[in-house]
Amino acid sequence: MDHVRIGELSKHIDQTVTVKGWLYNKRESGKLKFPIVRDGSGYLQCVVSKKEVSEESWQAATDSTQESTLHVVGVVREEPRAPGGVELHVSDFKVAHLTQDYPITPKEHGTAYLMQHRHLWLRSKNQHAILRIRSEVEQACRDFFYNNDFTLIDSPILTPAACEGTSTLFETDYFGDKAYLSQSGQLYLEPAAAALGKVYCFGPTFRAEKSKTRRHLMEFWMIEPEVAFLEFDGLQNLAEEFVEYIVQRVVERRKEELKALERDITKLERIQRPFPRITYREAIDVLQKKGKDVKFGDDLGADDETALAEAFDKPVMVSRYPTSIKAFYMQPDPNDPEVALGMDMLAPEGYGEIIGGSQRIHDHDLLLQRIKEHDLPIEAFQWYLDVRKYGSFPHSGFGMGIERAVAWICGVTHLRECIPYPRMLYKIYP
Amino acid sequence: MDHVRIGELSKHIDQTVTVKGWLYNKRESGKLKFPIVRDGSGYLQCVVSKKEVSEESWQAATDSTQESTLHVVGVVREEPRAPGGVELHVSDFKVAHLTQDYPITPKEHGTAYLMQHRHLWLRSKNQHAILRIRSEVEQACRDFFYNNDFTLIDSPILTPAACEGTSTLFETDYFGDKAYLSQSGQLYLEPAAAALGKVYCFGPTFRAEKSKTRRHLMEFWMIEPEVAFLEFDGLQNLAEEFVEYIVQRVVERRKEELKALERDITKLERIQRPFPRITYREAIDVLQKKGKDVKFGDDLGADDETALAEAFDKPVMVSRYPTSIKAFYMQPDPNDPEVALGMDMLAPEGYGEIIGGSQRIHDHDLLLQRIKEHDLPIEAFQWYLDVRKYGSFPHSGFGMGIERAVAWICGVTHLRECIPYPRMLYKIYP
Repeated sequence: MDHVRIGELSKHIDQTVTVKGWLYNKRESGKLKFPIVRDGSGYLQCVVSKKEVSEESWQAATDSTQESTLHVVGVVREEPRAPGGVELHVSDFKVAHLTQDYPITPKEHGTAYLMQHRHLWLRSKNQHAILRIRSEVEQACRDFFYNNDFTLIDSPILTPAACEGTSTLFETDYFGDKAYLSQSGQLYLEPAAAALGKVYCFGPTFRAEKSKTRRHLMEFWMIEPEVAFLEFDGLQNLAEEFVEYIVQRVVERRKEELKALERDITKLERIQRPFPRITYREAIDVLQKKGKDVKFGDDLGADDETALAEAFDKPVMVSRYPTSIKAFYMQPDPNDPEVALGMDMLAPEGYGEIIGGSQRIHDHDLLLQRIKEHDLPIEAFQWYLDVRKYGSFPHSGFGMGIERAVAWICGVTHLRECIPYPRMLYKIYP
Repeated sequence: MDHVRIGELSKHIDQTVTVKGWLYNKRESGKLKFPIVRDGSGYLQCVVSKKEVSEESWQAATDSTQESTLHVVGVVREEPRAPGGVELHVSDFKVAHLTQDYPITPKEHGTAYLMQHRHLWLRSKNQHAILRIRSEVEQACRDFFYNNDFTLIDSPILTPAACEGTSTLFETDYFGDKAYLSQSGQLYLEPAAAALGKVYCFGPTFRAEKSKTRRHLMEFWMIEPEVAFLEFDGLQNLAEEFVEYIVQRVVERRKEELKALERDITKLERIQRPFPRITYREAIDVLQKKGKDVKFGDDLGADDETALAEAFDKPVMVSRYPTSIKAFYMQPDPNDPEVALGMDMLAPEGYGEIIGGSQRIHDHDLLLQRIKEHDLPIEAFQWYLDVRKYGSFPHSGFGMGIERAVAWICGVTHLRECIPYPRMLYKIYP
């Protein structure tokens, strides 16, 4: 090991180490300089004293510019007031690569400019924190399902059938056939649930929607569990257990990053089971009492979702939507067949829907009827119908869009900052 | 919990439980029946004794067919000879859904037929075992990098530039622009390494290659780490540490599945560091001594790789290939500029290349020169060049194709069985 990562320095108190990284910022005070070095694992305050270093080192510290590559040697000292709890008392300071005219300065830049420089913007403190949290969320998702004995089933991205209309699908030529980029792995998970019981997929999904809101991306990651013999109440239990787990894990392991984002952690600490559950019919009542012009059969808009969620400081699960506004595969409620055993989980603080899920129809003939009612091509769904033909079983699953969950956890408004290289309307660079 | 998963039954010895699953197979012997039930978590031998169950249960056990959905109640008994170490002494046996004419019978079917029924074939014992191992490998990959403080950076699938020729790229329309499905996340990881130090991506990659060999898929998953300030020797250390970890983890946690596949586990137990390392120049010598018609500058074919690997019972790392046959971004060897600091790791037993990696050029002008020499569009690489312009740093990374690693670990010949829904030439169903 020729150098130590900044995040590991607290294990090297009073030792001489080499740190490699980039100049983040620099304060100066006469014969002392305080360069802050970042290396991706943390931020380190260095102390360069003119009388303790060579002339070359002093000159290098003087010349170093924002984002120059640095090799710094020094002794690690405990310093509770410094970020990371340590400081480096420098004995040798080298600029390995001098950066000139770095395009992103500490002054304010417009978002379009920053997005055009996304490959560099990633180095900024907030973007760094968001991406560290995203990474934690994704690992937490995988650990949750792994620890609960789910099998990961990577569903295909290239799919043959246009299941629900082609208007929002990206299309490609597949050796003379048409293929479409997947919008969900669910249909592929259901046969796999018959093979493996508890399965999940987690991959990129695509939506070619001419939409420019802060809540849409053309390419986003979605995690989808599917469980054999799980019925609707159990599905809601699974969803709340899952969300509690990932939020508390970030609170526990990504404190520094939440702090960098000035996130109110008490709001996240509150995300503990049980979550409130209301039905769609109850939701319509609540909204009507608030004076909203909605009635049974209407889809809920973003404003409605916010109005519903503001009564709670935890995510709320809204269940049993009218079958007419939900996907063809949702199991009707046996006690109220006008509605389906589907639910959306709405995050607090106006972040809107983060999860959508349902129990699936497991009766072959009912599913066939729905496919016909929705004018879907029966042939393309033959293999999906097979799941109901050969050893049918009740089963349920949900999907969570990662960027929406990350935006909520980070307290960030725009989804575009919650994915390393966002793909937006007309924007596919770099 | 209304039922217990088969994999959990050993925690319920002498308790009465309900199991839900599918009939895998059935033996009968007079007034005893031994249905084997599978539920994705394991296989359970049930004992149904005519004198201990109701007439309905006996009839249900008699009528049950392969892949019928079952609800079985009984007492869990220890039975070391049974799969999973337990047996269920049945008190109640119900067929929840009777399967008729299941298309995949225990007799032999051709591969084309099985692939056409991939959504059902997943339920077969070997396919189940392979997918459980795949899932373990993928989690092991993620755990390895998470535990080593890497940040997951999901690189984009939709990319604007055709970096290395468009002939093997899937193309799609992106709101009037052309976009291509990614073949590697590497270029996007390099700027992220400047932001986060140690990063990796792990997602689907695409190759529209008119190739029909057992070692090609159009859509496959690849894991790619990229590390700031890591040079070539360190890269080889990382690759061997990584491969040892995932193989030993499967050996440790997926014994049942390896046994189901009749995999020789001793061959996997041997996969311990250090792995042998030879240079390309040495490899050419070895091959020439074996009478092969190869010379410096030739790419190594699959036969050459097998011939090289057969001398070792561990993966072998072949390094320092001629720059002329390697990618434009590879750092030349300072001691031998005709060759690049790149390496391929070849699996034993003829499984061929599983990893390819390199140190990347970090000098701006040299990289620019290479981009020109390769006739690549400079404009499309401007952001990639920026990594060398602003705080450049030596860095290295590799990529491992998951299906190839899984095929080797499972001892399976064809990649198509190592992914849930393979995408092959002209084959995109289901």
